[in-house]
Amino acid sequence: MADLQVLDLHASLTDRALNSMNFLNEISHHYPDAISLAAGRPSEEFYAIEDLHSYLDIFSRHLCDDLGYDEEAVRRTLFQYGRTKGIVHHLVARNLALDEGIEVDPEALVITVGCQEAMVLVLRALRADPKDVLLVVSPAYVGITGAARLVDLPVLSVAGGNDGVDLEDLVAVVKAARAEGLRPRACYVMPDFANPSGLSLDLESRRRLLTVAAEQELLLLEDNPYGLFPAAGVDRVPTLKSLDTERRVIYLGSFAKTALPGARVGYVVADQTVAAPDGSVGLLADELSKIKSMVTVNTSAVAQAVIGGKLLANDCSLVAANQRERAIYADNLRAVTDGLAARFPGGEVTWTVPSGGFFVVVTVPFAVDDALLEKSAHEYGVLWTPMSHFYDGDGPITALRLSCSSVTPDQIDAALNRLAALITDQL
Amino acid sequence: MADLQVLDLHASLTDRALNSMNFLNEISHHYPDAISLAAGRPSEEFYAIEDLHSYLDIFSRHLCDDLGYDEEAVRRTLFQYGRTKGIVHHLVARNLALDEGIEVDPEALVITVGCQEAMVLVLRALRADPKDVLLVVSPAYVGITGAARLVDLPVLSVAGGNDGVDLEDLVAVVKAARAEGLRPRACYVMPDFANPSGLSLDLESRRRLLTVAAEQELLLLEDNPYGLFPAAGVDRVPTLKSLDTERRVIYLGSFAKTALPGARVGYVVADQTVAAPDGSVGLLADELSKIKSMVTVNTSAVAQAVIGGKLLANDCSLVAANQRERAIYADNLRAVTDGLAARFPGGEVTWTVPSGGFFVVVTVPFAVDDALLEKSAHEYGVLWTPMSHFYDGDGPITALRLSCSSVTPDQIDAALNRLAALITDQL
Repeated sequence: MADLQVLDLHASLTDRALNSMNFLNEISHHYPDAISLAAGRPSEEFYAIEDLHSYLDIFSRHLCDDLGYDEEAVRRTLFQYGRTKGIVHHLVARNLALDEGIEVDPEALVITVGCQEAMVLVLRALRADPKDVLLVVSPAYVGITGAARLVDLPVLSVAGGNDGVDLEDLVAVVKAARAEGLRPRACYVMPDFANPSGLSLDLESRRRLLTVAAEQELLLLEDNPYGLFPAAGVDRVPTLKSLDTERRVIYLGSFAKTALPGARVGYVVADQTVAAPDGSVGLLADELSKIKSMVTVNTSAVAQAVIGGKLLANDCSLVAANQRERAIYADNLRAVTDGLAARFPGGEVTWTVPSGGFFVVVTVPFAVDDALLEKSAHEYGVLWTPMSHFYDGDGPITALRLSCSSVTPDQIDAALNRLAALITDQL
Repeated sequence: MADLQVLDLHASLTDRALNSMNFLNEISHHYPDAISLAAGRPSEEFYAIEDLHSYLDIFSRHLCDDLGYDEEAVRRTLFQYGRTKGIVHHLVARNLALDEGIEVDPEALVITVGCQEAMVLVLRALRADPKDVLLVVSPAYVGITGAARLVDLPVLSVAGGNDGVDLEDLVAVVKAARAEGLRPRACYVMPDFANPSGLSLDLESRRRLLTVAAEQELLLLEDNPYGLFPAAGVDRVPTLKSLDTERRVIYLGSFAKTALPGARVGYVVADQTVAAPDGSVGLLADELSKIKSMVTVNTSAVAQAVIGGKLLANDCSLVAANQRERAIYADNLRAVTDGLAARFPGGEVTWTVPSGGFFVVVTVPFAVDDALLEKSAHEYGVLWTPMSHFYDGDGPITALRLSCSSVTPDQIDAALNRLAALITDQL
């Protein structure tokens, strides 16, 4: 039999980053009756199958009415191989101008199979040499660590601190890496309601981060899946990309939380120029497109049409389109933090009070590992995520992440009772 | 400005494989009025927007009626994050049993973003070490070479010969590689109406290839996008995978030609076992799934639903569903080979007469390069593909590929007149 050993396969397959996601998925399958404060899935409350049909129709009509396509060209656009950089780039560019204050040439956009493919394309392009490294603000989204593993790009952690990114540590990590002969290519950061920390950078921190990145000649990879979901009464802060005057920021975009994850449509803004040895100059987006042509060829035209239709149905602004979702997330976030306050008045257990997004981090006076999660699922009927999954090191981590995005206030109440019982029994 | 040099990016970006696709796309954009015998696109004749709607509905009803999902679960399946290995695996398994005689556990399937992602997942898993190499039957589809470049996996060419694969050369290449300390991981082959050669392996060659692969302890990567399109009167030959009794073959599947490319849905059959150091044994499909979770997370559920609906609408057989397309391709193939015979009676120009598929290779008594293609587009108004794009080396190649899949017989007639004028002017 032509069978294999895992140790003969790529090293990523035995790496924690790739197995973490698997473990977390499996545990929720094993305990389907446990209440899940683990999954970072969007709310399903307003999903309607009819919308898929109407979005497809709206996008088809747009191709005819606004772009002047004949029927054959419309069919070809939806069914056939097409433009590698995508077919909704002009709508995404309009969306970025309206919702994010980012003015970008649609040619500098690559529409991708979710934000995850965007990360893979960018890291694949940037990893040219064994000396290349990626800086990642820690604790970090598992997807960026996993993508880095797939392209053999080592990750150096930068402390997140209390403000979302510790700029002194960033400079220290860059300098130490360069002293070792390494080449830091970029720093990955989620400035708005980060997964998993829940932290956001304020405007001043964003400006300073841009200054430091310029001083250190570092690209910034800005990932922004949650920016449209500030808590009640909180104003949105401008994205790094909208403050970026020197093409320092590669912006990674997602429609998973603002439209629907099942389309798997994301994008990257890559307006950096790339000079070739023959003196010609192109856009980084075009280099990423070449890589994309060998990863997925195109992003599904059918899926792009659904997202294009949703954008068109909302005049290309998703802020207004997500008011109901924003209210749900804000209420849930408050239910979690208020619920924790009611159950843990003593100070032994602490938690973050994020200004938006999906995630609250709870710190407890004991190590939180996968065994405790298993116990929690089995004996207490509540799921959450050990924060250890978001750190690269092996040290014990005494915190867990709660996600409030796909549960009701009643489920939050019941889940927090169960969590409180678990925590109290550990103390 | 934070701008970049292409030489500071991953080496694949200056590689011919990644730039070839780009060059060929660009030339067809520059000469939109030239008749294209270049693109390997499927026929667009039977595309209908209504089908997208009805396929979505059929798949939704299947989830309810056949799988017992309630409405909430149907919505969740189409809109939300889901199973990494896909949601149409059971239908694809039925399709493989019916159309290909391949009996496979649906758990051994990973549904991918087109066949291209399947290649990337497999090559990423197999490339563990700098000594790993991939064998590819030459001339080769650019997508496999490009995918290999992205994971830094060197490619060794195996002669295709006149039968589709030269088994003596295969053994010689494996032995020479091993003598150099290299580790050949697999051999990529397209046994049916290959792109670009048009050649097919007969049944006896397939059996011998499986025997040689077993003797050499080599995996085979079988890619089969064109198998449903034999020429008129030609019987289909069993796939390698259906003849494979020892899990020697990883089967790469595509719906781009048999359903629609715009869905971007493909798959891989990976029923090999993988043993972990702790003694546990899983499926290669599950290892590929871990990689997929870091490349695209999921294949678009909306796109899978369209393909699932098309399969359901045809009782999971695409042979019958593609009779009209098969007839078009068979007629066109004949129009090309008959048309060449009528125009080049002398013997100085020769061509293959494939038993099916999309491609005819024309050999001429002069080197065929990109400059000649440019001249052909500009001065003669006909596009085709220099065969040099499908070879890894730099030597002059005196052949060109004609594709007959997305043109009419009248266009073929006109295109061959133009091509004949070009060739005659070069003689």
